[in-house]
Amino acid sequence: MNPTNGRTLADFQPVDSGTTPRYAAIPTFMRLPMASPEEVDIALVGVPFDGGTTNRAGTRHGPREIRNQSSLTRRVHHVSGISPYDLVKVGDCGDAPVNPIDLMGCLDAITDFYTGIRKAGATPLTAGGDHLISLPILRGLVKDNPVLGGPVGMIHLDAHSDTYDTFFGDHRYTHGTPFRRAIEEGLLDPKRVIQIGLRGAISDAANYDYARSVGIRIVFIEELVARGIEDVMAEARERVGDRPTYVSFDIDIIDPSQAPGTGTPEIGGVTTREAQQMVRLLQGVNMIGADVVEVSPPFDPSGLTALTGATIMFELLCVLADSLASRRG
Amino acid sequence: MNPTNGRTLADFQPVDSGTTPRYAAIPTFMRLPMASPEEVDIALVGVPFDGGTTNRAGTRHGPREIRNQSSLTRRVHHVSGISPYDLVKVGDCGDAPVNPIDLMGCLDAITDFYTGIRKAGATPLTAGGDHLISLPILRGLVKDNPVLGGPVGMIHLDAHSDTYDTFFGDHRYTHGTPFRRAIEEGLLDPKRVIQIGLRGAISDAANYDYARSVGIRIVFIEELVARGIEDVMAEARERVGDRPTYVSFDIDIIDPSQAPGTGTPEIGGVTTREAQQMVRLLQGVNMIGADVVEVSPPFDPSGLTALTGATIMFELLCVLADSLASRRG
Amino acid sequence: MNPTNGRTLADFQPVDSGTTPRYAAIPTFMRLPMASPEEVDIALVGVPFDGGTTNRAGTRHGPREIRNQSSLTRRVHHVSGISPYDLVKVGDCGDAPVNPIDLMGCLDAITDFYTGIRKAGATPLTAGGDHLISLPILRGLVKDNPVLGGPVGMIHLDAHSDTYDTFFGDHRYTHGTPFRRAIEEGLLDPKRVIQIGLRGAISDAANYDYARSVGIRIVFIEELVARGIEDVMAEARERVGDRPTYVSFDIDIIDPSQAPGTGTPEIGGVTTREAQQMVRLLQGVNMIGADVVEVSPPFDPSGLTALTGATIMFELLCVLADSLASRRG
Amino acid sequence: MNPTNGRTLADFQPVDSGTTPRYAAIPTFMRLPMASPEEVDIALVGVPFDGGTTNRAGTRHGPREIRNQSSLTRRVHHVSGISPYDLVKVGDCGDAPVNPIDLMGCLDAITDFYTGIRKAGATPLTAGGDHLISLPILRGLVKDNPVLGGPVGMIHLDAHSDTYDTFFGDHRYTHGTPFRRAIEEGLLDPKRVIQIGLRGAISDAANYDYARSVGIRIVFIEELVARGIEDVMAEARERVGDRPTYVSFDIDIIDPSQAPGTGTPEIGGVTTREAQQMVRLLQGVNMIGADVVEVSPPFDPSGLTALTGATIMFELLCVLADSLASRRG
Amino acid sequence: MNPTNGRTLADFQPVDSGTTPRYAAIPTFMRLPMASPEEVDIALVGVPFDGGTTNRAGTRHGPREIRNQSSLTRRVHHVSGISPYDLVKVGDCGDAPVNPIDLMGCLDAITDFYTGIRKAGATPLTAGGDHLISLPILRGLVKDNPVLGGPVGMIHLDAHSDTYDTFFGDHRYTHGTPFRRAIEEGLLDPKRVIQIGLRGAISDAANYDYARSVGIRIVFIEELVARGIEDVMAEARERVGDRPTYVSFDIDIIDPSQAPGTGTPEIGGVTTREAQQMVRLLQGVNMIGADVVEVSPPFDPSGLTALTGATIMFELLCVLADSLASRRG
Amino acid sequence: MNPTNGRTLADFQPVDSGTTPRYAAIPTFMRLPMASPEEVDIALVGVPFDGGTTNRAGTRHGPREIRNQSSLTRRVHHVSGISPYDLVKVGDCGDAPVNPIDLMGCLDAITDFYTGIRKAGATPLTAGGDHLISLPILRGLVKDNPVLGGPVGMIHLDAHSDTYDTFFGDHRYTHGTPFRRAIEEGLLDPKRVIQIGLRGAISDAANYDYARSVGIRIVFIEELVARGIEDVMAEARERVGDRPTYVSFDIDIIDPSQAPGTGTPEIGGVTTREAQQMVRLLQGVNMIGADVVEVSPPFDPSGLTALTGATIMFELLCVLADSLASRRG
Repeated sequence: MNPTNGRTLADFQPVDSGTTPRYAAIPTFMRLPMASPEEVDIALVGVPFDGGTTNRAGTRHGPREIRNQSSLTRRVHHVSGISPYDLVKVGDCGDAPVNPIDLMGCLDAITDFYTGIRKAGATPLTAGGDHLISLPILRGLVKDNPVLGGPVGMIHLDAHSDTYDTFFGDHRYTHGTPFRRAIEEGLLDPKRVIQIGLRGAISDAANYDYARSVGIRIVFIEELVARGIEDVMAEARERVGDRPTYVSFDIDIIDPSQAPGTGTPEIGGVTTREAQQMVRLLQGVNMIGADVVEVSPPFDPSGLTALTGATIMFELLCVLADSLASRRG
Repeated sequence: MNPTNGRTLADFQPVDSGTTPRYAAIPTFMRLPMASPEEVDIALVGVPFDGGTTNRAGTRHGPREIRNQSSLTRRVHHVSGISPYDLVKVGDCGDAPVNPIDLMGCLDAITDFYTGIRKAGATPLTAGGDHLISLPILRGLVKDNPVLGGPVGMIHLDAHSDTYDTFFGDHRYTHGTPFRRAIEEGLLDPKRVIQIGLRGAISDAANYDYARSVGIRIVFIEELVARGIEDVMAEARERVGDRPTYVSFDIDIIDPSQAPGTGTPEIGGVTTREAQQMVRLLQGVNMIGADVVEVSPPFDPSGLTALTGATIMFELLCVLADSLASRRG
Repeated sequence: MNPTNGRTLADFQPVDSGTTPRYAAIPTFMRLPMASPEEVDIALVGVPFDGGTTNRAGTRHGPREIRNQSSLTRRVHHVSGISPYDLVKVGDCGDAPVNPIDLMGCLDAITDFYTGIRKAGATPLTAGGDHLISLPILRGLVKDNPVLGGPVGMIHLDAHSDTYDTFFGDHRYTHGTPFRRAIEEGLLDPKRVIQIGLRGAISDAANYDYARSVGIRIVFIEELVARGIEDVMAEARERVGDRPTYVSFDIDIIDPSQAPGTGTPEIGGVTTREAQQMVRLLQGVNMIGADVVEVSPPFDPSGLTALTGATIMFELLCVLADSLASRRG
Repeated sequence: MNPTNGRTLADFQPVDSGTTPRYAAIPTFMRLPMASPEEVDIALVGVPFDGGTTNRAGTRHGPREIRNQSSLTRRVHHVSGISPYDLVKVGDCGDAPVNPIDLMGCLDAITDFYTGIRKAGATPLTAGGDHLISLPILRGLVKDNPVLGGPVGMIHLDAHSDTYDTFFGDHRYTHGTPFRRAIEEGLLDPKRVIQIGLRGAISDAANYDYARSVGIRIVFIEELVARGIEDVMAEARERVGDRPTYVSFDIDIIDPSQAPGTGTPEIGGVTTREAQQMVRLLQGVNMIGADVVEVSPPFDPSGLTALTGATIMFELLCVLADSLASRRG
Repeated sequence: MNPTNGRTLADFQPVDSGTTPRYAAIPTFMRLPMASPEEVDIALVGVPFDGGTTNRAGTRHGPREIRNQSSLTRRVHHVSGISPYDLVKVGDCGDAPVNPIDLMGCLDAITDFYTGIRKAGATPLTAGGDHLISLPILRGLVKDNPVLGGPVGMIHLDAHSDTYDTFFGDHRYTHGTPFRRAIEEGLLDPKRVIQIGLRGAISDAANYDYARSVGIRIVFIEELVARGIEDVMAEARERVGDRPTYVSFDIDIIDPSQAPGTGTPEIGGVTTREAQQMVRLLQGVNMIGADVVEVSPPFDPSGLTALTGATIMFELLCVLADSLASRRG
Repeated sequence: MNPTNGRTLADFQPVDSGTTPRYAAIPTFMRLPMASPEEVDIALVGVPFDGGTTNRAGTRHGPREIRNQSSLTRRVHHVSGISPYDLVKVGDCGDAPVNPIDLMGCLDAITDFYTGIRKAGATPLTAGGDHLISLPILRGLVKDNPVLGGPVGMIHLDAHSDTYDTFFGDHRYTHGTPFRRAIEEGLLDPKRVIQIGLRGAISDAANYDYARSVGIRIVFIEELVARGIEDVMAEARERVGDRPTYVSFDIDIIDPSQAPGTGTPEIGGVTTREAQQMVRLLQGVNMIGADVVEVSPPFDPSGLTALTGATIMFELLCVLADSLASRRG
């Protein structure tokens, strides 16, 4: 367990909703205490940045609303029985530094922030922000990381592949391009990448050629439905094996009726019930971090998308805490 | 059929939407006439009370909006063929007396109101209100009822068990505790209680210990999905047998995309299609009453939750009318 | 291919979202150029009329919002691989003339507009408007059409049969009556009509007697779920055979959580995923036109229903373009 | 006082909000009892009709929502001290019969309904509906009314003159034409008509020529602001004198920030504070009826417009009750 | 200045929006640091309680949303030039303990919390919650306070007097009764109480008799408009003199178009511009505390009411900081 | 009048809403025809760009929604009698090219677009976008413009001065800095710049020092209210004289109750009635162009802000058309 300045597991417990109502008090992630990365095993982090968005902006407001709705989550997973706050220290480490008018500078600042988290010994679980933020997170976690020594695998749940080369001419850094960059930069091993839930009309017939040419495994939603979630997730676990793996959850894998607050909705998505099942089937994966991205509160008047984002974060937290506790032995 | 002051079945018919558009006229439940309990076989009742709510309030506005949306329901069930208004007298008996600032007094007033309905010979079908109202309804129907002579069974469709002991210290009357109280008070026979659709993280690992210790059968949504609705509902019918049974439908069993207007949403719920199927499979149960609770209009801007609540009320009305007509012979 | 004034296939391409963001520029259907029917093979048309609506109005605003949301669609179908803009000329032919205060005059004006489209050699794909508009569209396409020589078949996806005789006394032209009129007028061959997805309580037990008496095949949603979509759609294709067929898609076949913006919502509908699958299984049908109706923006604050309408239009466009291209050889 | 079947003033009192909360019980106008016109002095009536609307529909839903919000009104006017329910019998007389698909038939049905109210001895205070309904109301009140013996005056508060001749060709009955028809039919004496609050760009320079040519006095909002409300309303009272006068209040005279739920909003309107002052300055006018029209709930998500409509109805009720009580002596 | 554990004025500065965007980071009041009352001169406090509400609930969510919107406030008042964070130490002291199902216990807990703040030497500026919370705040500040030695004055800005005796029978503690209780309990000196902005129909003619009988000065909005704000506020300052005074700001004094998110809206209110002017004219008053109450986020979809609440808090903070700094010399 | 390819004034008339309802047809600005700048005297242009926004984004969606709502505007100004479409040719010239992920490149592209408009002989009236777009517009109109020969004046209606130097470190191009840059670049003559309506707390006491140091005249809203609009606008006209002047209208000068859809709302703003009066008092100013910026549809669910923006555009169009027609003689 991460060495701390004397704060123990008992200090990293959520505010008790049986004492303080869920609507009271400052909204941190899961009602946990604020902490520095040095103090925790799992760092919950917000990245309020949407500078890479090509269509409807608004995910800059994601972390605040996910924190707000996360007051509704509880302590113990009712299916797996995992109780993350009994296993590891989890805290709200605040937001990465961002700047809405400096895309390139922002990428560097986020990278540095995550390098700091890694060096502090914490594993990050992030609330975005648009999907471009996965790139600087991966840079911070993987680049020059002597423990890893090379690219990592990724289980990527999304409606889109996000492996375009450029947008609007020759612009290489958008929320449609992060994983092509990550592969080019040696952060991801495409042969250990699987993308699940993709759907929607495409810009041209060659749309997925890059992804396939480098060895990424794409599972369209039609295949997911036909084969069933257990079978596909078993393939996913097999593909990444027991080596280090990042998990990226784009909220738009979920149907827009259940996650309307997002920038690029595609009808016909997975249900939240299916999404929860998919995350639960990640148990056992060797996770070096995870994110939930593309929650856009301006398009989410009911707060449902943020609630879903917060609940998926809790599901990810359970498997991540279990993974850390298991590996620590 | 309930003896009346001369009003016949023909007097208890909904306003005809082929003559008066659905948006016209005062909104009573199902566009039925107002009535006193003495005049009807089935009393549609509102209980605009949310004083037991521990998180987001608003179900006090439920009965008005359910009445409003219920103008969209029609006369004949398209699957079962049941036409309730041809079988029994159904009327809108108004709202139970409530007081938002006196929880304990309100429980007594609601109890008295339902005792009156029972003594008038009517069977109540209720629109809440938060789930605490099921307690005074059960008191009114079961306590000192010589016909029943003891506790009743319950088929409980919900995302939560609502069998906590206390909240916020030693407070025993909240929307999270009604059924523990009902068991303690001898209103419910826990061995004839089944709770279906439960889900969501829990406050502690011992969360369901009370329910299980007294013999309540809990079916999580994962089991419901795995076994299928027909199988689980067959078990439910078998569990309650042909003895008197109450049916409580908490709208939050339904996924928050289809029922956003509720105080404690849990993602991953049943669909309305599944919920309708569940209610239809109640046909034949010996129902002494039923309720649809936790519809909260302030969190339901589109009105969808109230429409769902009204439609579920119609589904319940069909099986209830069929049950009454069958037993009357 | 429709002869034109020199504009070629290359002139009928959507604005490229890789150059011009999706939120920019005037919103035409699918970001296509405006065109006259003479110039195109498939005419995308709006009919902003809701004068036949018996309950909540608002579909008059449908075409604008569907156009607006259609900027999110792309070029190539990711499952079938169909790329409609590479097969045929498709353009936005504007709105049919309408008049909200003259129902009968409006039916004639819409009929004339569609007669013009037919005579120009284009096949119409329409965004409504309420379901009454299907009647003048069918008149325009079928009446006195020497090529057809008689009534056509119809695959009708809807929550309602829309075959009532009259409303509000003896009024024969409403959004609940178009297909009875179409059969009486010899526009539809009821033996080649199939209605899929119907549900919801009915006004009286004899509700569907007319439809059945003339030979319409009705598939309730319960049958659809029990048999599966592939099986039912195979029956649909078999029923219409390879003779000319119209396709009418009422957005209320979809569950109101995914299509809240409509006038007569019925809970328990098909999902968008199922709806997409149903439309894809129309491939090969000999389509003379299609419509997507009953999208009502005033009841659709999030825009989801219009997005769904636009996406279903794209799905229909793919099968329609494929059908035209195949038959043209 | 209107002779009744034995119901006295005490029977026509609003439900007491100090006993029954405002959100409880069936929503009638002002929480008053339902009544037949024969029983009351002032008949509160809904006309859920928007068939004359040329742009955004939705006022068909006005009466229900105004009833709903009217639960917030109270008993005694805090400035004038008028307590209408202590002066005269006021009841909710339900909705006039309407039919959304038969404009001309509907005008006749509404006329008959108001003729009935007049013959019953009640004075109507109406919630619309679009502004076309003022025409059949005036027909019912004025045509063949031996007591009046001729056209009446009108104080008309509105953003628009509603004296167009035709729309969409030669259509003479729309919500933009009622008062031209009323003058042509001898229902209104244009020399005793004043229109206050008009504003907004106009269709052509000759826009107001008809109104002026027949002698209607038009007060633009700029004049209203420059002269002040007291001065303008004094002119209004002087213009109509003590002879019979109708008052028509179009909610769009109020700024769309305070009354967003309307079909033809014009920015720069009067405030509700000003509107209330205007209505209060009607005290002493010999009113034969009044209406509040163009409240459109689908465009009023917060309910503010309906609340404003209900409050203006209460303001009108106070001056109308005072007028009736004064004249009765 | 309040003695602290070494934290200086520099430690109590808002997060700089020129460095961290306004949408980033955990939302505390004014982006200030969390603090204990002992550390600050002015304690910003939330009281998320609406248990005294007689109509629409929801103000329990007020403190969170006011905190959220308060990120938009800045450092220096542009008219008075007051820069509160340069004058005194201001911090977010969290929420008072609340319990939604125990009205009486909650009053005691809030009282204790404010007694603690007083004893710590801080002056509280509170965000409610419903208006009942002013009672326990006054108890905490005034009761047994040797420095004050008796009841205080109050400048009360509101649409309602809140001096009813009881509700729903004999219930004495509601958001309509706090100031009657406060007078009875010797917390307020009615001769030094002025209520400004009152309006709206009243329940009975004797409505304000109590207030007037004990010497409260009531200024209806009509008088406020007629005399002008400067004149009325001069009277208010004169009435309370330079002795200790509490300021209570009910958001419903503002027109519901500018503050829709409240439980008992009354049209015809003051504008925010007027409200700001009123608060600015409090400069010089000897304030012992202040509150902004009745902000109800469930009825405030745009967030405007919370933004207004936060801005009014900043206005109050400026005059309060100035008052404290001036008196401290 | 701008020489054209044969299209005459009659070709540049809005679609007639007496023939085609306002909700029908593709939404161009004011329902005018699309045109190239060469064809028109006044070019209506959208700039869907919000890359300079420091807080809430969304103005990228402004042009589409303003176009949509502009269908509600009419032909002739009811106060001034100006009929712009009878004076000059006005057309919708589409959107400037934008790129949400390349701020600096976008500034150049917009500049080029406006240089093109100027060289085509048209005067631009723009719908934004955030306020940064005024900088490239001014560059396009003023830089290297031989006709002007130097900087222009500006009447600037806004809640903010937008003359900051940098944000988030040393970032010089944001929506808070355009006019400082414009002065530095010699586009604006600060002595002929007046800023009206400013308000809200400020970041530091020296906030307006730059503006004042270079000679900009600042009129806070308090001064505007105290002196009256006529007096202040007379000063504005005097300040700019009869030399070339740009007019920039930031929608946030208007109170957020009337213009909620904006990124940086400040309560206490001008009313739309006042704003209209201000624009009307621009008549006679020698305008080289104008813009309406900061309309943000994601925060404008009712569409009111876009309607206000469209109406203000019409008001500006009237004075601009009058100015052009007068000067052309």
